[in-house]
Amino acid sequence: MNLTFGQYELIYNAFSFGTATFFAATIFFWLGLTQVSQKYKTALVITGLVTFIAGYHYLRIFNSFGAAYTEMDGFVTATGATFNVAYRYVDWLLTVPLLLIELILVMGLSRAETVRKSTTLGIAAALMIILGYPGEVSSGIDSTRFIWGALSMIPFLYIVYNLFVGLSDSINKQPEDVRGLVSAARWVVILSWFFYPIVYFAPFVMSVDGGGTFTVIEVGYTIADVVAKAVFGVMIFTIAVRKSQSQAA
Amino acid sequence: MNLTFGQYELIYNAFSFGTATFFAATIFFWLGLTQVSQKYKTALVITGLVTFIAGYHYLRIFNSFGAAYTEMDGFVTATGATFNVAYRYVDWLLTVPLLLIELILVMGLSRAETVRKSTTLGIAAALMIILGYPGEVSSGIDSTRFIWGALSMIPFLYIVYNLFVGLSDSINKQPEDVRGLVSAARWVVILSWFFYPIVYFAPFVMSVDGGGTFTVIEVGYTIADVVAKAVFGVMIFTIAVRKSQSQAA
Repeated sequence: MNLTFGQYELIYNAFSFGTATFFAATIFFWLGLTQVSQKYKTALVITGLVTFIAGYHYLRIFNSFGAAYTEMDGFVTATGATFNVAYRYVDWLLTVPLLLIELILVMGLSRAETVRKSTTLGIAAALMIILGYPGEVSSGIDSTRFIWGALSMIPFLYIVYNLFVGLSDSINKQPEDVRGLVSAARWVVILSWFFYPIVYFAPFVMSVDGGGTFTVIEVGYTIADVVAKAVFGVMIFTIAVRKSQSQAA
Repeated sequence: MNLTFGQYELIYNAFSFGTATFFAATIFFWLGLTQVSQKYKTALVITGLVTFIAGYHYLRIFNSFGAAYTEMDGFVTATGATFNVAYRYVDWLLTVPLLLIELILVMGLSRAETVRKSTTLGIAAALMIILGYPGEVSSGIDSTRFIWGALSMIPFLYIVYNLFVGLSDSINKQPEDVRGLVSAARWVVILSWFFYPIVYFAPFVMSVDGGGTFTVIEVGYTIADVVAKAVFGVMIFTIAVRKSQSQAA
């Protein structure tokens, strides 16, 4: 697959941007641990874990991309080394269940409900990632990509439905000054998550060459990851801080 | 583009200086977290994030420069690998909004005003960086560089005007022993920021060759970054410590 110099630069810088963002976000969340009460510390630790794991994988993705393509005098050449798509999936397998758990934890539900929702949504999230993987690594824009992607949409829609309907009651029980934020965080999850299947299925409707498709997928996933993990994490942090302050008062 | 040995050494050492300064500043700010009250912890965490992100990018810039030029027996040769100008812009995209937020946070405004000012100035800052980028990566000292630079000046002037006029009232409400410092921090932002457009537009008025222009731009940006992030950060730290002490007393 050939990349133009512009495509190469865009992907390269998107990966570096992701790495910097995720590690910086991790430190932000963990240094914020002293600002929240005991009850929300686990939520914040997990928020940082999500961005830490993402930072690690973006560093690996950056290096894998650097090994797969070299640039000289403005021309980009594929070296023959394979760009490892699996890093993203290993990342998601770890981070997506954790992401859901951090949202559930910050809502401060009962212990039983926290365990129940974390388990069902966590398993559904893992299933969603596992089913998407065979489609992503299949060599072309073909029925393999389509079928596995479609299967992956089943747990995806189950999660989105549960976040939307299943958490509606809980949101009304939140303290007034965070209700808007919790609702916004739920929307950020849902909207940023819809970005992933759009990117996944984009090659079927786009009429661009391999390099263009690759660029859209890699840059698209990077934007979705930054929103779903770092921006979402800042919202979780803000909710945790406000809830801790209102309890202390 | 050819660099003399002197130019190569100057740029190379400026990048190393930036890397060391930013990582050292980061540790200084974060270790100082125990010295400030809860209210100013986020300001200090963000001050350290700014220099951490800058340190990461200076390390990448240093490596990119090392890959683009080699030196042997006092002679410098371009290898053909492209020096990645985008690292600076990705850095600024992340750090400049955060820089403004740290100044706003340390002023201790009301929650509504903090959110409002952080949002408008943060967005203006991101817009400023995005508009400057196409001009910076354009190959020559031409109308492309000029037009995008000029467009980037619109949000730039909006921010400077807001810091200058919009924060005047708030400065008069600061405790007496930090009022001078807050005012000075505002000046450091404004003056160090004017350094960036001067560097950006310098090639239009200088009559030097490509290597000379490159040297002025890279060393100039490094000096501006150190002042706007590390020196400014020390002022934010001092304000936070003094305000914490006067509250405790």
